[in-house]
Amino acid sequence: MTQSPKTPLLDQVTFPADLRKLEDRDLPQLAREVRDEMIDAVSRTGGHLGAGLGVVELTIAIHSVFNTPDDRLIFDVGHQCYPHKILTGRRDRIRTLRQENGLSGFTRRAESEYDPFGAAHSSTSISAGLGMAVAADIDKTDRRVIAVIGDGALSAGMAYEALNNAGALDARLIVILNDNDMSIAPPTGAMSAYLARLASGRTYMGFRDFGKKLTAYLGKNVDRAITRAVEHARGYVTGGTMFEEMGFYHIGPIDGHSFDHLLPVLRNVRDNANGPVLIHVVTQKGKGYPPAEAAADKYHGVNKFDVITGAQAKVKPNAPSYTNVFAETLIQEATLDDRVVGITAAMPTGTGLDKFAEIFPSRCFDVGIAEQHAVTFAAGLATEGFKPFAALYSTFLQRAYDQVVHDVAIQGLPVRFPIDRAGFVGADGPTHAGSFDTAFLATLPGFVVMAAADEAELKHMVRTAVAYDAGPISFRYPRGEGIGVDMPERGHILEIGKGRIVKEGTKVALLSFGTRLADCLLAAEDLDAAGLSTTVADARFAKPLDHALIRQLARHHEILITVEEGSVGGFGSQVMQFMAMDGLLDRGLKVRTLVMPDIWMEQAKPEAMIAHAGLDRAGIVSTVFNALGRSVAVGVAG
Amino acid sequence: MTQSPKTPLLDQVTFPADLRKLEDRDLPQLAREVRDEMIDAVSRTGGHLGAGLGVVELTIAIHSVFNTPDDRLIFDVGHQCYPHKILTGRRDRIRTLRQENGLSGFTRRAESEYDPFGAAHSSTSISAGLGMAVAADIDKTDRRVIAVIGDGALSAGMAYEALNNAGALDARLIVILNDNDMSIAPPTGAMSAYLARLASGRTYMGFRDFGKKLTAYLGKNVDRAITRAVEHARGYVTGGTMFEEMGFYHIGPIDGHSFDHLLPVLRNVRDNANGPVLIHVVTQKGKGYPPAEAAADKYHGVNKFDVITGAQAKVKPNAPSYTNVFAETLIQEATLDDRVVGITAAMPTGTGLDKFAEIFPSRCFDVGIAEQHAVTFAAGLATEGFKPFAALYSTFLQRAYDQVVHDVAIQGLPVRFPIDRAGFVGADGPTHAGSFDTAFLATLPGFVVMAAADEAELKHMVRTAVAYDAGPISFRYPRGEGIGVDMPERGHILEIGKGRIVKEGTKVALLSFGTRLADCLLAAEDLDAAGLSTTVADARFAKPLDHALIRQLARHHEILITVEEGSVGGFGSQVMQFMAMDGLLDRGLKVRTLVMPDIWMEQAKPEAMIAHAGLDRAGIVSTVFNALGRSVAVGVAG
Repeated sequence: MTQSPKTPLLDQVTFPADLRKLEDRDLPQLAREVRDEMIDAVSRTGGHLGAGLGVVELTIAIHSVFNTPDDRLIFDVGHQCYPHKILTGRRDRIRTLRQENGLSGFTRRAESEYDPFGAAHSSTSISAGLGMAVAADIDKTDRRVIAVIGDGALSAGMAYEALNNAGALDARLIVILNDNDMSIAPPTGAMSAYLARLASGRTYMGFRDFGKKLTAYLGKNVDRAITRAVEHARGYVTGGTMFEEMGFYHIGPIDGHSFDHLLPVLRNVRDNANGPVLIHVVTQKGKGYPPAEAAADKYHGVNKFDVITGAQAKVKPNAPSYTNVFAETLIQEATLDDRVVGITAAMPTGTGLDKFAEIFPSRCFDVGIAEQHAVTFAAGLATEGFKPFAALYSTFLQRAYDQVVHDVAIQGLPVRFPIDRAGFVGADGPTHAGSFDTAFLATLPGFVVMAAADEAELKHMVRTAVAYDAGPISFRYPRGEGIGVDMPERGHILEIGKGRIVKEGTKVALLSFGTRLADCLLAAEDLDAAGLSTTVADARFAKPLDHALIRQLARHHEILITVEEGSVGGFGSQVMQFMAMDGLLDRGLKVRTLVMPDIWMEQAKPEAMIAHAGLDRAGIVSTVFNALGRSVAVGVAG
Repeated sequence: MTQSPKTPLLDQVTFPADLRKLEDRDLPQLAREVRDEMIDAVSRTGGHLGAGLGVVELTIAIHSVFNTPDDRLIFDVGHQCYPHKILTGRRDRIRTLRQENGLSGFTRRAESEYDPFGAAHSSTSISAGLGMAVAADIDKTDRRVIAVIGDGALSAGMAYEALNNAGALDARLIVILNDNDMSIAPPTGAMSAYLARLASGRTYMGFRDFGKKLTAYLGKNVDRAITRAVEHARGYVTGGTMFEEMGFYHIGPIDGHSFDHLLPVLRNVRDNANGPVLIHVVTQKGKGYPPAEAAADKYHGVNKFDVITGAQAKVKPNAPSYTNVFAETLIQEATLDDRVVGITAAMPTGTGLDKFAEIFPSRCFDVGIAEQHAVTFAAGLATEGFKPFAALYSTFLQRAYDQVVHDVAIQGLPVRFPIDRAGFVGADGPTHAGSFDTAFLATLPGFVVMAAADEAELKHMVRTAVAYDAGPISFRYPRGEGIGVDMPERGHILEIGKGRIVKEGTKVALLSFGTRLADCLLAAEDLDAAGLSTTVADARFAKPLDHALIRQLARHHEILITVEEGSVGGFGSQVMQFMAMDGLLDRGLKVRTLVMPDIWMEQAKPEAMIAHAGLDRAGIVSTVFNALGRSVAVGVAG
């Protein structure tokens, strides 16, 4: 391990107030030191590297010019916030990033008063900032609100809704568009092309020009309404930029790595802006660290790495990742069925659809960070007889919930929903947990809701989803690698609504939905050993439920436990609803429904989270013992 | 009742193919007859009037020029589709609109092949149309896809996501922007102001000019790539319109009531357009019916009315509407607490916030059709110590689900969610039913989830929500009027997580959440009369649950029934989860969970829907009898 870098200037800066004591000419040196510190920290923890490196100067400039935390600074998404954390009292914990009990990889209100709004999902900052700006207005304070948002995040409709409203409200909001022509993958969409045209077509203007232009516009002695009217007229006549059409005063593009550009513009805006202002700043993701600058993804998210070479630690996988199994199976099936198409919302690598796109470029669509559109676009394709796979993470599918209800489910359209990152996700914490998908999908009439118990099951479910054309169908699978089961040459088509008994017993029934099956089998070993003959079943479907299987388990066992890596309201609730209405509970079946606990569980290793939730082997065993009024024998729960 | 209008030309038109046999010069007459027919029909049924009247010429022109249904025509929202229904084989049923077993008030795939995509929620048409356009492209057909979308619907981020993606995909999609400067209320936001500038600043161009311009651009012999590059350069140099910046060829504004404008433009686009085209059409909502033209809301949604005078039938209410009780209580409380602010997403009248805005104009925000933004904007206000009430319909809150999870709940911010139209909504059918809110909110850690049993309870809950500042809180209430209970001068603050016993018994426990309480009390009369002493409790809270109350009911009754006007996964599931894990089911409590049935229930009167769902007095009684193995005595269930 390398030594920590020397950072004489940064060592004097604990909070932004310290930073504000420095001279402008010191800031480039401070930026170098922040960069070194951040590279060193992330080399030890892993995490988001490229995004933070791109905004070092911008972060320093903002804290230097604005009076944070009284002025509110909001980072969109938040994975670019490591320099911000280093400069706001959290440097001493920066090497705990994304670890259990460590700093979050995102901004977090609970962590610091310098984080006025938590983030992780994209494109929320302008809405939140507008709320704060309006609050400042009502409270008649001169507080400034600054939202820093990337160009990729602008493809989400939510950002547009907020711009639209900010322009109309004429609120004193400063939006800094951090344009690095990258989100995680290179961004897509017309807005991205538009920004590229702006950035390439306009020469960067020096601060003198900006000063003049801004003073003319914003000067305190000029009547504001008249000025705006003139500006609007100008925008109308000459066209203006899209942001000007939305009611923003638009500055830039300027060089986001140049303090000579950043400081005077920010100061002028701080002192003079009275309405919504958008500052278009061009930065380079991964800036200042050659291995990141050279990488295609600019080291967006990295494992621990060697600072000198940039080589990332490779974790040798024991089994293929679920994402890969999904992607490879989809390719296999799509080769045999030319109606299969893939849709991703700016997550081609994360969902594995990048591989699908290589082979079927005309049948794969990356719509940008635009989950709502992704789902209804898929619905449109389904009406024309295509078999769209809208591949999203569980947590991001939440963005498209109404589209799933209104455009897909009510119409019964056969859109396929592969749901990646379902369940606990580890270091990304509660904002990325895939907790709710089963609950919000299984409530919908006509939906088929599956979960894969292992990677072979996933293969079956992909093929089942290709074959099933009668309505919407989803299948969830976790982050990370499979459990190493034998893989079939080709998946087979599962019977809709049929589970399977994996192990037969007589007294205890464990009914698993999804990934907890392996731990149920281990728990069954312990229970059998304790004289409690245990049946283990894999439900496969939360909807439609396998009524025959549930009746059999309920009638022939003393206790029935449902187990799932999801929230209340999901599989267990579906089973309880059926059992209650079917009278299966009337005669005193002991039943327990193991679900994720009713808390926002903090980042930790997924195994630790599962254990804490009581969803592992030991948790299942102790649930059974407690229900039967037996004390847990020491060591039995293995 | 007036006689049906004389419609000699329309009588020859059953399907668009008939319409296409007419001469262009006949179309104005056809438009008059369609208008007369539509006014007559809606005067008998009630429904959406203004929107349809505004697009009579546009609808005729599209069906005349395009080869529907093979060319796909999608109406956004769908409440402007009555003329379309009259012209596409459904005239004979047009007087059954919005009635049980009648035509839907929206487009519906199941109803007609001329409805390729169902709608009701706003702003989905461009996404769906883009899916169809891409499908046509893959299938190498020359099928055209036309999406008709109002200017109000453009404030939703989803529409922007779709425009952004369409521009990038360069798909052959025709978007007709129906600009009537009205959605339900006059629209808000910078986009609206922008469209107004476009419409007022550009003179309407005659079709000759369009022909020239279009031919120059779209002419088949011109190399398309070069032409587009030139256009983009032109857009860049002169600014272009926002739609041009997004990659659309932008035509208009043109007069949407003039066939001389509409027909040549549509024909030219049909024959020559190869990329995304946006046609900006200006129409007048309520056009051609003087009472509608004169009304502030242009007769957006009307009761039955007198065709001559326009006077709408007034239904004499028995009690104040829930919406009014909410609005008046919020005003009452806001007078005493200046941190209370209101937020609506283009539903000021529907939510009652129009009244709030009259009294507190600077504390009320209509953000447009932008639920996602509305919720995160409210979260921003909450961070600054305000008490935001984000008033939405249950069905539209689905649009902001991720924002509720990610921006409000994970951060524990005290945003208040008044949820109007919760439960069955009647004539608007399944797309507007408020079915899922309890399920998707009660899964969220830290949320307080309430439901009002009557209008006095609603008053308590508004005050409780004002007083409660520890985290997010919601309260649901139905469409329509209260049940006529005595109203307190002021609501009182409810203890969080405490239900109440309304009537004591010994054998049967009915545990109601929300509006079904009155029917539970009626059912209890029947049950008592049948010798089954019945307890009735009002849970008030689905989260946190009143554990003491549930334990008491479970331990001291033979049977426990939960009753709610919501889907599985909600209140009943929360109760079952608790009872299972608390061991309350171990000894053979008979339990039944009455929820909305697992179907998309079609439009009917709400009372009929509730009865069909088994959630009324008779349904509750028969559930108890069935569970106890007794046959239902004839007549007992009243």
